[in-house]
Amino acid sequence: MCNQHHTRVLSVSHAKTKFEQTTIERRELRPHDVLIDIQFSGICHSDIHSAFDEWGGGIFPMVPGHEIAGVVTAVGAEVTKFAVGDRVGVGCFVDSCGECEYCLSGEEQFCTKGVVQTYNSLDYDGNPTYGGYSQKIVVTERFVVRIPDSLEMDVASPLLCAGITTYSPLKHWNVGPGKKVAIVGVGGLGHLAIQFAHAMGAEVTVLSRSMNKKEEALELGADHYFATSDPATFTALAGRFDVILNTVSANLDVDAYLSMLRIDGTLVNVGAPAEQDTYSVFSLIMGRRSLAGSLVGGIAETQEMLDFAAEHGIAPKIEVIRADQVDEAYERILRSDVRYRFVIDISTL
Amino acid sequence: MCNQHHTRVLSVSHAKTKFEQTTIERRELRPHDVLIDIQFSGICHSDIHSAFDEWGGGIFPMVPGHEIAGVVTAVGAEVTKFAVGDRVGVGCFVDSCGECEYCLSGEEQFCTKGVVQTYNSLDYDGNPTYGGYSQKIVVTERFVVRIPDSLEMDVASPLLCAGITTYSPLKHWNVGPGKKVAIVGVGGLGHLAIQFAHAMGAEVTVLSRSMNKKEEALELGADHYFATSDPATFTALAGRFDVILNTVSANLDVDAYLSMLRIDGTLVNVGAPAEQDTYSVFSLIMGRRSLAGSLVGGIAETQEMLDFAAEHGIAPKIEVIRADQVDEAYERILRSDVRYRFVIDISTL
Repeated sequence: MCNQHHTRVLSVSHAKTKFEQTTIERRELRPHDVLIDIQFSGICHSDIHSAFDEWGGGIFPMVPGHEIAGVVTAVGAEVTKFAVGDRVGVGCFVDSCGECEYCLSGEEQFCTKGVVQTYNSLDYDGNPTYGGYSQKIVVTERFVVRIPDSLEMDVASPLLCAGITTYSPLKHWNVGPGKKVAIVGVGGLGHLAIQFAHAMGAEVTVLSRSMNKKEEALELGADHYFATSDPATFTALAGRFDVILNTVSANLDVDAYLSMLRIDGTLVNVGAPAEQDTYSVFSLIMGRRSLAGSLVGGIAETQEMLDFAAEHGIAPKIEVIRADQVDEAYERILRSDVRYRFVIDISTL
Repeated sequence: MCNQHHTRVLSVSHAKTKFEQTTIERRELRPHDVLIDIQFSGICHSDIHSAFDEWGGGIFPMVPGHEIAGVVTAVGAEVTKFAVGDRVGVGCFVDSCGECEYCLSGEEQFCTKGVVQTYNSLDYDGNPTYGGYSQKIVVTERFVVRIPDSLEMDVASPLLCAGITTYSPLKHWNVGPGKKVAIVGVGGLGHLAIQFAHAMGAEVTVLSRSMNKKEEALELGADHYFATSDPATFTALAGRFDVILNTVSANLDVDAYLSMLRIDGTLVNVGAPAEQDTYSVFSLIMGRRSLAGSLVGGIAETQEMLDFAAEHGIAPKIEVIRADQVDEAYERILRSDVRYRFVIDISTL
């Protein structure tokens, strides 16, 4: 007898090839597993890095996707959190040891055994993981979150990665009323960060290369907008921010950005350029400033983020595409031709 | 009538020249001023940078020295904190606005008007400041601290800069029981940092280029000692420290040091290399790590540090020199031939 679940997927057979529609088997349900019919799957820039094997070590064939929104269609015998029909999401991780200090404190992303990523990773049973460009997925309930009723499934999907990636550092570095925060970049991450920071009660300044996205940024909740192509911006904003959240993956003039921080301010990076950054230690010393990085967020915080988004009407701006448009979408992402996130309608797969 | 105070000093007439013994006038006492007979004045590496004008903008003739220990010999009419005969110290600053948020919170080093440095700076009255290589100094009482009776005057002097520079970041980043801290470098700053971190109850690891200073480091309170010239050190200590305090001014392999931090760990720099550092943003993101800097400390914290040092028997290791040995001492510092701090016996001036 076999209880495995056939599922159609979009996969790449090796790095930098086109996507093809194939079939894989999802594992039979273990006691704590949930079977999810995926409705929408967001496209994250890291999907491209992975499918192109730009970070090395890619496991092929690969089914990307870690912004998953769907409905529970079956549950394992010991599942307590979910029932058939529940609207649920899965983000960047599908397992962790559950026993280390980080798992116990709800920061599974830092699991000392090593978190199992939703795709392009080896599960603890040794099998490769396959992601959300897929009709179905089986995930242990601990890594499944609930999508609030007021969030549409398509807009919910990008929150599972882009949302938590920006929400978590804003919370961790205490963005809220009375705080001045700058968001660098208005893209898939940045346009969510603006909404979160605004809803948290902070004064939000957007720093973007040009003035092109000013109106959209203000509509998203920004109080101020400056172009970083203008050197006067850095003078005008000297010593201004408690937190600067950098959502851009290009190399920055780190010292120039640090100069816009207040005493004890922090420049937090969630995007990482391939090349090293350079900075002067003086820029840190003179204001007891910090340079930091943040990595998505834990499962409990992901649920908190979804609930917060629902409560405050926060939603990514998305362009829903068909399964046969993913290659084209990748090309458009690479030329920044998306405002701001592609979401695959899995019913077209 | 003139109430100015003649005082012999060691000064350099222009950059990189030798010291000469000359005379300057200290201002007459204002209502809140204290006149101090200086007994000992420590030599800080930044004295050399300043006297050699390596940072530019030097004000010559220059009298360096911001590690000042002496006795009060006169007080202004409205002085309340000190009386004639009190054992006192003066560190890196001699005035600040007193009204900004940082002055009000006891962090005068970040005064928004700009703190007045003890030498090579312009006082708010427009006159240059002259430092501690001097028989007398006049300082407003707000910038004078009390030297506890149990601290000898000569060992107290280096605490006024090297002490607070290391104590403040250890406190700010919550070094204490249950925390693992690494001190990079065993020099004027590092040998004090080891003692403070140990007295605060942390587990202290010393990271030094070679094994040469192991015994001394362990005597100062280190629990562990590793040589950074051995690549195995970085593997053995991966993910280990809550805080790494870098007291070395040379450029580090920042990513290698960041790899020794735990999740949420911080690499704090108190020494600044002239060249920019390079690092990979991934090193920060993967463990939500931070790179930070710290700048001496406020006056209240300087007093707290002196009291803490007295209570815990913390003292710099010093070599007391005569006034005519300062040029030689500078040369020895530049070839790292000092364990660990020179202190000028001002009675020889």
